[in-house]
Amino acid sequence: MVTKNQIKRIKSLHQKKYRKEFNLFIAEGAKVVQELLNSNFKLEHIYVTENLPFNVESDKISVISESDLKKISALSTANNCLAVFETPIEKRVEFSDWVIALDDIRDPGNLGTIIRLCDWFGIEHLICSSQTVDVYNPKVVQATMGSLSRVNVVYGDLATQIRESKVEHVYGTFMDGDNIYQTSVQEHKGIVVMGNEANGISDEIERLVTRRISIPRFGNTQQTESLNVAMATSIILSELRRS
Amino acid sequence: MVTKNQIKRIKSLHQKKYRKEFNLFIAEGAKVVQELLNSNFKLEHIYVTENLPFNVESDKISVISESDLKKISALSTANNCLAVFETPIEKRVEFSDWVIALDDIRDPGNLGTIIRLCDWFGIEHLICSSQTVDVYNPKVVQATMGSLSRVNVVYGDLATQIRESKVEHVYGTFMDGDNIYQTSVQEHKGIVVMGNEANGISDEIERLVTRRISIPRFGNTQQTESLNVAMATSIILSELRRS
Repeated sequence: MVTKNQIKRIKSLHQKKYRKEFNLFIAEGAKVVQELLNSNFKLEHIYVTENLPFNVESDKISVISESDLKKISALSTANNCLAVFETPIEKRVEFSDWVIALDDIRDPGNLGTIIRLCDWFGIEHLICSSQTVDVYNPKVVQATMGSLSRVNVVYGDLATQIRESKVEHVYGTFMDGDNIYQTSVQEHKGIVVMGNEANGISDEIERLVTRRISIPRFGNTQQTESLNVAMATSIILSELRRS
Repeated sequence: MVTKNQIKRIKSLHQKKYRKEFNLFIAEGAKVVQELLNSNFKLEHIYVTENLPFNVESDKISVISESDLKKISALSTANNCLAVFETPIEKRVEFSDWVIALDDIRDPGNLGTIIRLCDWFGIEHLICSSQTVDVYNPKVVQATMGSLSRVNVVYGDLATQIRESKVEHVYGTFMDGDNIYQTSVQEHKGIVVMGNEANGISDEIERLVTRRISIPRFGNTQQTESLNVAMATSIILSELRRS
């Protein structure tokens, strides 16, 4: 059972404003929900349309109708479960390894994919500008496929975060940067800034970059189409880790 | 102006069956349409909601209402233009460089991203199993961002295509494969097989693989979540080209 008021409250979590107000977010699909249950995320409630084998207290799970799930879902095609979790407190960022910095990434799919990549490559911290899409946006949570539980994502003024980190090496990707395949990476820690999908790295952040790198294009170089930011992140992380 | 019959015909192109029957496909958004116009694709007609500066014969462009564009669009949010192009004839695949082989890739976004990656890394030919999502699916066309005009995509029984290519080196990604960062790539041509999102490489294709490779995970290795196939492709292409 889910009451009208509960539906209204859960639907409000599709919006950032109410996620902040209630300190709650939603996750959908058994795989994502299970991964978050296995981690330190604190569950408020799970709504399922069929009996799913989640190991939670019985008062924290409700079987609801498919039409009710559709009402509370943020997906165009609702899954068979939706869970409401408490938003965790941002952890202190450790700069003892590489940290990825996102300068206004707007696309939820890109942020979700970047979080999966961080998880794969063992990057534990992601620092984001305030304008970067919210990590608890339902589409981001969905795209992380559970990796969210293993990557600490922190928001704030990006220039301030980079300055206060006092890290020596700040990499940024630019057209005129050093070819990443010919750039020997001696460093074992630092920050890699990834820029906005349309505008790249902002001027303010560019001034903090200590090494300009680029991913060379091997195809017809007259074409202007650039690599998607998630693809670029995968190639850079691969290069940082392979060495 | 667009007649009811034209709307019906264009909408039918959302389905593979009718794309095959009419030998036509649709592309949406000024950027994608312009890239296809710049290439060898043969235009049938462009429908726009405002005057856009396409350099085409006047009888090949029509200004239509936003509500009509919405009717013919395959996107959840229609753009400001939609063009109908003729499906080109598949070109003969040349195996003088690396060729990517897709073993039942089902997600349009993944195929679109892989085509963009091929374009970036100068891979000219992509061979696909018959069950791989159709490259002229509107969501794939959209995700390629115009790269479609620079990559030859061919469909057919994948085992037959690989066998008939007579290439010496067929790479495939498996959990137990050689670490790609420690695998020296001496070859300058061959085939790299990328497997289905859920099931990986099929048994039939696995038997044709001459070298098993793997992308090592650097994060918590107890987690089962794998890399998305498009991410894996970007890392492998980066490794093949960097050497």
